[in-house]
Amino acid sequence: MYSPAGVETSPEFPVPERMKAWVLGGPDELFLRDKPTPIPGRAEVLVRIDAVAICATDLEIIHRGSPASIQGGLPFNKNFTPGHEYMGTVAALGPHVDEFEIGQRVTVEIHAGCGQCKRCRQGMYTSCLNYGKPEKGHRANGFTTDGGFAEYAVNHINTIIRVPDSMSDPEATLVVTAGTSMYGLTELGGLVAGESVVVIGPGPIGLLAVAVAKALGASPVVLTGTRDRRLAIGTELGADRVVNIGNENPVDIVKQLTGGIGADYVIECAGSEATIDQAIHMTNRGGKICLAAFPHEPVMTNIANLVRNNIYVYGIRGEGRSATHRAMELMAEKRFDATKIHTHTFPLADLPTALRYARDRVEDAIKVVVTARETSAIASAAE
Amino acid sequence: MYSPAGVETSPEFPVPERMKAWVLGGPDELFLRDKPTPIPGRAEVLVRIDAVAICATDLEIIHRGSPASIQGGLPFNKNFTPGHEYMGTVAALGPHVDEFEIGQRVTVEIHAGCGQCKRCRQGMYTSCLNYGKPEKGHRANGFTTDGGFAEYAVNHINTIIRVPDSMSDPEATLVVTAGTSMYGLTELGGLVAGESVVVIGPGPIGLLAVAVAKALGASPVVLTGTRDRRLAIGTELGADRVVNIGNENPVDIVKQLTGGIGADYVIECAGSEATIDQAIHMTNRGGKICLAAFPHEPVMTNIANLVRNNIYVYGIRGEGRSATHRAMELMAEKRFDATKIHTHTFPLADLPTALRYARDRVEDAIKVVVTARETSAIASAAE
Amino acid sequence: MYSPAGVETSPEFPVPERMKAWVLGGPDELFLRDKPTPIPGRAEVLVRIDAVAICATDLEIIHRGSPASIQGGLPFNKNFTPGHEYMGTVAALGPHVDEFEIGQRVTVEIHAGCGQCKRCRQGMYTSCLNYGKPEKGHRANGFTTDGGFAEYAVNHINTIIRVPDSMSDPEATLVVTAGTSMYGLTELGGLVAGESVVVIGPGPIGLLAVAVAKALGASPVVLTGTRDRRLAIGTELGADRVVNIGNENPVDIVKQLTGGIGADYVIECAGSEATIDQAIHMTNRGGKICLAAFPHEPVMTNIANLVRNNIYVYGIRGEGRSATHRAMELMAEKRFDATKIHTHTFPLADLPTALRYARDRVEDAIKVVVTARETSAIASAAE
Amino acid sequence: MYSPAGVETSPEFPVPERMKAWVLGGPDELFLRDKPTPIPGRAEVLVRIDAVAICATDLEIIHRGSPASIQGGLPFNKNFTPGHEYMGTVAALGPHVDEFEIGQRVTVEIHAGCGQCKRCRQGMYTSCLNYGKPEKGHRANGFTTDGGFAEYAVNHINTIIRVPDSMSDPEATLVVTAGTSMYGLTELGGLVAGESVVVIGPGPIGLLAVAVAKALGASPVVLTGTRDRRLAIGTELGADRVVNIGNENPVDIVKQLTGGIGADYVIECAGSEATIDQAIHMTNRGGKICLAAFPHEPVMTNIANLVRNNIYVYGIRGEGRSATHRAMELMAEKRFDATKIHTHTFPLADLPTALRYARDRVEDAIKVVVTARETSAIASAAE
Repeated sequence: MYSPAGVETSPEFPVPERMKAWVLGGPDELFLRDKPTPIPGRAEVLVRIDAVAICATDLEIIHRGSPASIQGGLPFNKNFTPGHEYMGTVAALGPHVDEFEIGQRVTVEIHAGCGQCKRCRQGMYTSCLNYGKPEKGHRANGFTTDGGFAEYAVNHINTIIRVPDSMSDPEATLVVTAGTSMYGLTELGGLVAGESVVVIGPGPIGLLAVAVAKALGASPVVLTGTRDRRLAIGTELGADRVVNIGNENPVDIVKQLTGGIGADYVIECAGSEATIDQAIHMTNRGGKICLAAFPHEPVMTNIANLVRNNIYVYGIRGEGRSATHRAMELMAEKRFDATKIHTHTFPLADLPTALRYARDRVEDAIKVVVTARETSAIASAAE
Repeated sequence: MYSPAGVETSPEFPVPERMKAWVLGGPDELFLRDKPTPIPGRAEVLVRIDAVAICATDLEIIHRGSPASIQGGLPFNKNFTPGHEYMGTVAALGPHVDEFEIGQRVTVEIHAGCGQCKRCRQGMYTSCLNYGKPEKGHRANGFTTDGGFAEYAVNHINTIIRVPDSMSDPEATLVVTAGTSMYGLTELGGLVAGESVVVIGPGPIGLLAVAVAKALGASPVVLTGTRDRRLAIGTELGADRVVNIGNENPVDIVKQLTGGIGADYVIECAGSEATIDQAIHMTNRGGKICLAAFPHEPVMTNIANLVRNNIYVYGIRGEGRSATHRAMELMAEKRFDATKIHTHTFPLADLPTALRYARDRVEDAIKVVVTARETSAIASAAE
Repeated sequence: MYSPAGVETSPEFPVPERMKAWVLGGPDELFLRDKPTPIPGRAEVLVRIDAVAICATDLEIIHRGSPASIQGGLPFNKNFTPGHEYMGTVAALGPHVDEFEIGQRVTVEIHAGCGQCKRCRQGMYTSCLNYGKPEKGHRANGFTTDGGFAEYAVNHINTIIRVPDSMSDPEATLVVTAGTSMYGLTELGGLVAGESVVVIGPGPIGLLAVAVAKALGASPVVLTGTRDRRLAIGTELGADRVVNIGNENPVDIVKQLTGGIGADYVIECAGSEATIDQAIHMTNRGGKICLAAFPHEPVMTNIANLVRNNIYVYGIRGEGRSATHRAMELMAEKRFDATKIHTHTFPLADLPTALRYARDRVEDAIKVVVTARETSAIASAAE
Repeated sequence: MYSPAGVETSPEFPVPERMKAWVLGGPDELFLRDKPTPIPGRAEVLVRIDAVAICATDLEIIHRGSPASIQGGLPFNKNFTPGHEYMGTVAALGPHVDEFEIGQRVTVEIHAGCGQCKRCRQGMYTSCLNYGKPEKGHRANGFTTDGGFAEYAVNHINTIIRVPDSMSDPEATLVVTAGTSMYGLTELGGLVAGESVVVIGPGPIGLLAVAVAKALGASPVVLTGTRDRRLAIGTELGADRVVNIGNENPVDIVKQLTGGIGADYVIECAGSEATIDQAIHMTNRGGKICLAAFPHEPVMTNIANLVRNNIYVYGIRGEGRSATHRAMELMAEKRFDATKIHTHTFPLADLPTALRYARDRVEDAIKVVVTARETSAIASAAE
């Protein structure tokens, strides 16, 4: 039985010494393996994973390796367990942890800063200067430390948030996505009631940015994209106007809706040269742009327009400034229904199928969630 | 004699009813003409101009017309008086003005917002949404309203600052340039003591950005550029390290100087594709970039690096947030010697010569100043 | 007919040259008089007043004179028209005003800063250093310039906000009260979703502070007071817990609800020594207190607790930072029902009765609204 | 020899296994004892103490016990080592520490937050909600964990700052005091160039607040107090005007110096009812007050003036927001001479004498510094 020194466990919540976990093989290879159940340290807990949503970044990591291995020029990171949008149940407590109790349902955010670099000391834990160095205390589960496509994961207590009984497991996996949207709006100033907000790109972060912006009172909220079905979900989540950029000029529409001056805030979630250019030209003088997506190659950018119009641009990484807590509260109070972006569910044993649905957008999939609790019955699987 | 209704004048400071002023003709044409001396309204004063510095934007306006005419597609703005970096003496007071007295020496900043748009109400007067609309109360002397290549100009009281006796006329013309540098540092957070700052481009704004950053305690302050003589002035103004990018790789040097992580703040004052790219790659995770210059055409920009590293980019226009007052105070207390960038002086009658020195960088000219008080003796002149 | 030079009027919206207006006599004297209809200047409009809510400050001004007369040691300000929580219809436009149209329904906020002092230039128009000096451009209708207990009033365009068709006249009079609550929450940081907020004092500002805090996602929101009926309205407006301080210790309750640490934010709207002391002791380390009310005499205050616990205290005056716009948007989107605090309505002719209800809290009156459009039929009245 | 597991030591910097340390006995008792040399953990270093300045809080702790024992109602904290304004040399490194090297000279700040509470996550480590709980990772050396009146102390790496060769040991002990002044100015907004600042109380924090405010360009800086000799030091540190409140009315003087409106910022470092009242009445509309000292009993406070004038009040604890780093940089660049407040020096063996000088202000002592390196030669001593 699992009972590491210094770790608090409960007889009512027995934990096995070994667990099943999906691990990376070579590029696009994923294997279900046995691993030792990980051990929480100071300020950490063990979480039994109950559900995990799939993010586009997961697909990239499975295809290209983890950011640490890519950036570091390391060999492909075999045995690494990806998955970062998960929720579950507290299963064991590291030394001195009394902030949580075994048995509590929790959802997670990704970034636990080192707590000892300049940025962490400023409260900017998602910009930790020791990113990727677990020996300094940094964790980004599913990126630089083992993630959630497994039966258990260790989380720093800063990265877990209680889930109310009224919220389902799949909905709870969406909190970190909403938290990323909330972080973007926070960095733009946060006080968006009555302000014009344009969201470019109806992916998960964009759609929830619409929902969060409306929940905070933004008006009008405009959503632009290319697929009418996605835009229709944006309307359900509160967009005052959707623009299919195949049919209409988004810059013109935004100017019309804003008395000719352009939008106060633009959240760019598409990451193409064309949409970044639209963002720059639809923002008003003194307005702000959040870049929540990016093209992989450099793109032609109208820098002059940013300078002439005193526009500020915020490249955001992750879900900083405790934004996930604010997103959770709005979701707990049912200010918007994030589950409108949850389209498919598979058991963890079918992770390869779930990944395929997410990657190929089978049946117009947006968020695909895998439920993890049946995993232990499964011997092995590969994509 | 000049004594408009409601305007306070002084017998000790007689003002003529008409004045000499340089005005635009066609592109690159400038004429010295007679004009009625302008009349200050509510919250405005009349300034007798004593000295004016020449800015690169002046050259552009003389060549291409004022921003209002360019942006508005208007015909070339004939009769417009350019010149915005001037100082002088209060000569008359508009109705109810008691904040200043006739005879006080003052220097100016450029932007008087309308006071009635959303941005002005936020204190963002340089981003006034009524830019270029004097009927709404906006003034940007030398850009959208008559400027300082003249004997007199009207200024909103928000745009004038007292000059201490210990400061010469030419030095006082440099305050608005220092204020622009200060505005950039303000928007980056302002608390730069002990932080690493890189300034790219040793033009007037860049050189004074070095001086202001050092005055506020930034360390190290690195200046990059291509001309050793300019870099040497940066050293005199306090740069801890200068980098001639013809000889050294600025990104590598900055990383070496900052323990491998890059700079906290970068102030980009060169405005080329190459230097913007350097800025993006020399800024550390969570760091900030101020864009104080810009290329006229779109340029290839590594957006991904901004997003991955949570970098924020501030396109700045002008000298907002009362930054000019802070710059003046540091100059009044002799924290740095801005006159190191003042290289040449001409009488206003020789404005064409002064402009040529500035445009062609004759004798390595940086700031060329014209002194205005002899003007009245001059009949007429043209470039 | 009313048609001042430079002012735009409409034949469809005729305005009389003279109007009825209530004016101060001696202390507690109020007379309905004829006055010339006022004339809007630059950036101003004429508003036909349709409804006015009564604020405790109105009662004080009628009793003691306007703040300008009190602070300035001036004689009691006869002929002054009080009333500041009004709404109405745009009736004429000052020179160059195109931001509004004649016939639009609008509600107002109080403070138009001078636009030319240091605080206005920072965007802090409610802290205008030229408060009470209309010649400098400052207006605080109902305080230093004529207010809304009249048929018409002049407003700076910065102080008016469009009212949607879906909002009734009486509800629109409550926007400025909600805006004051929003300003308090803004100064506390604004990002209150998931944060604990205590509101002390269930007066109009306190009750709407509960509503605004909940609309922004604060949780828990606790309301303390002495009258159960008022507390019950707080519950209707979203308070998670109400505390009758006659029965329970509010500091103990707040600690219990917050895991022993105290509240993140406290909004003090009662203004007594006891409640200020409670505020200080129920705020957690690093927390913040907004003072939105005050005792008229100095009170014993535990300064040490503020310092030891790094608590910040924000004395707020009015409805700054464009907070009224944010409040309006939340009300327009029906995020809370401000009319729950509107208890009584009288015609403007019965203003004295309305004032009595408000002053004596007749029938437990909270917000008493007078509707102004019938006024012209009334000859004269006095309290 | 000292060589704990996981700790990096150096043969060139041998550390003894036991050390001398002053410890509390009963109230006002202090004994020099043998203790095991403490062991640094993750993100911690061992510092050999070279010099310690005495703070008024040290005297209080020696008289009344540590804050933890006082606030917790614990018995007097025997064996506790006080002293928190120390500097020294890195003597050993905890596991994975590579941010510092053995042999580097460092000075310290006090507060290492737990890194896992809400406030620490916001960057507000001085307001750590786990204050006094070392098992959660919190340290406040000299307050809740052993301090600097000893040969060695353990410090979290967030609390140490490199000392340049050009700075003496005694000067380096003053950095944390300057950092507290800097923290106050930071919370007031930080951008004080050209702004009026009043410092009340010429104790160490007040005197260095004068120096820091001038270094940042504040003008005028006014210092008020009761002792001319102290005020004279304020003048040497840059005060533009000093006010002996025994002779002059400080509120009147400040109004005269500020055109009648009062000061932008007031830093209250005296902590009496009278001076807090002065602070409230000398601050202008929209201005800010920092409370850096406090009376032990509640005092009569004019709350109404804070509310009517939109004044914000910041109770500060310690030296947050990395302010000590900014203070160090200004001192390293010789922007002011903090040693002007250093009046006496004693060897650590004479700590009781040093404490007496500090407590009784013998010979007008301001900062008394003990130098620690001779200690090892001393057998034992008691007050």
